[in-house]
Amino acid sequence: MNLQNTPIGVFDSGMGGLTVLRALRAALPNESFIYLGDTARLPYGTKSADTVKQYAVQMARILIEKRIKLLVIACNTATTAALSHLQAMLPDTPVIGVINPGAQAAVAASKNQRIAVIATETTIASQAYQQAILAMCPQAKITARTCGLLVALAEEGMADNAITHAAFDHYLAGFNEEDTLLLGCTHFPVFESYLKKRLPTSVNVVDSALATALAVKNVLHEKHLVNSDTTSEVRYLVTDSIQRFQAVGALFLGAPLDKQTIALIDI
Amino acid sequence: MNLQNTPIGVFDSGMGGLTVLRALRAALPNESFIYLGDTARLPYGTKSADTVKQYAVQMARILIEKRIKLLVIACNTATTAALSHLQAMLPDTPVIGVINPGAQAAVAASKNQRIAVIATETTIASQAYQQAILAMCPQAKITARTCGLLVALAEEGMADNAITHAAFDHYLAGFNEEDTLLLGCTHFPVFESYLKKRLPTSVNVVDSALATALAVKNVLHEKHLVNSDTTSEVRYLVTDSIQRFQAVGALFLGAPLDKQTIALIDI
Repeated sequence: MNLQNTPIGVFDSGMGGLTVLRALRAALPNESFIYLGDTARLPYGTKSADTVKQYAVQMARILIEKRIKLLVIACNTATTAALSHLQAMLPDTPVIGVINPGAQAAVAASKNQRIAVIATETTIASQAYQQAILAMCPQAKITARTCGLLVALAEEGMADNAITHAAFDHYLAGFNEEDTLLLGCTHFPVFESYLKKRLPTSVNVVDSALATALAVKNVLHEKHLVNSDTTSEVRYLVTDSIQRFQAVGALFLGAPLDKQTIALIDI
Repeated sequence: MNLQNTPIGVFDSGMGGLTVLRALRAALPNESFIYLGDTARLPYGTKSADTVKQYAVQMARILIEKRIKLLVIACNTATTAALSHLQAMLPDTPVIGVINPGAQAAVAASKNQRIAVIATETTIASQAYQQAILAMCPQAKITARTCGLLVALAEEGMADNAITHAAFDHYLAGFNEEDTLLLGCTHFPVFESYLKKRLPTSVNVVDSALATALAVKNVLHEKHLVNSDTTSEVRYLVTDSIQRFQAVGALFLGAPLDKQTIALIDI
């Protein structure tokens, strides 16, 4: 088998990264994917950077053993904690995270260079988005906010109910000047349609999923790694309950998950 | 050192069990405690019973190696998944969970035998509270409800704000006949004062912490394990960030945590 015809590996702490997989599949319908969700140890967003880095290395090794041509870290927390480490560890495999593409999309969308970022505790504390945006646009004014509750809300399927509304009243308070809201967590695209209803039309809601998919597409072309096979498939590996992954995962993938394609692995 | 003068071991998935430790210290001020919080792998409540059982065995082994005289599983999910297994595994050490004491307290409090139980997904699915209550009170009518969001709310320190109110509007909807609300998760006592304000005075709000502390006290007396030493101390072991444990833990302990007493361990 040629390297071109091996799958793209995607990993996340659990189900949130399925929003990235969804964008990848839409952008690259001829590619095959292996998605690995570390559901036994989710969430990563409240764990220390060292712990997340160690988990990310383990996840990457599992996918590399399955023979993949490119690795996507579909998790903001894992990208901040482990991207440069995994790039050094895997010199022969392109490794793409969600932070730079997300930051780039936010900078491109903003007219007044005032960008609000909402993400998990570890992602915000790492300053990764703040640094990536400033590297591309030094005059940007960034307001970053930890939104711990939104991951749980997303996993409960509460994308637009009274609790969601109260949570965004809380988390968006004081955001007035910003013309761009960057969703810095792969769980958050499930709130996108509610946010577009809620926010003035002058505010751009940006997430990393689409931008990451386009970055992956570019790298496949640059490195001559585009699939030349006619079949493509998606397989899922999880570290805990297949049933819960199937049920909650569908919220993030935006489509039903076939149980036959999901396998449990030991870590 | 006599066995009496060794500490009581307490473990939990993270910080929620500190509500149980708080009750234990109040009931047993002369005892020493080692509290182990598996913060690297929290929460347990959304993980499968098999995974939680495996984690609980690991936690118990760590505490047994430290020489303890009694083991408290200060976590509802771990109690449902592992209590009987740990009791069989440790024939020489009394092992006490939070389910039976909590169920007993609810049955004692209820006049009309209509009891509402709110807990995590895994605890509710295990039917452990339902079975424990029915074993003591076969005519009881139990309404059990999964309240996934409350763990995250508690860990965010949101014990009584607009989001908390919206969450309880959602989770308590349809509870009308019940005269007793059993908080089936060690995180939930942080909501107790809000719930007492919110609910009619005819509704009893019961948690397992106090009941578990009294059960431990009884066993210490029965087995002649009461501490005869004059000094008592509390030490904390965690599997992830000491800083976060210290900050969030104080919410559950209801008192500041001294950083000097917290140590990080590898698992």
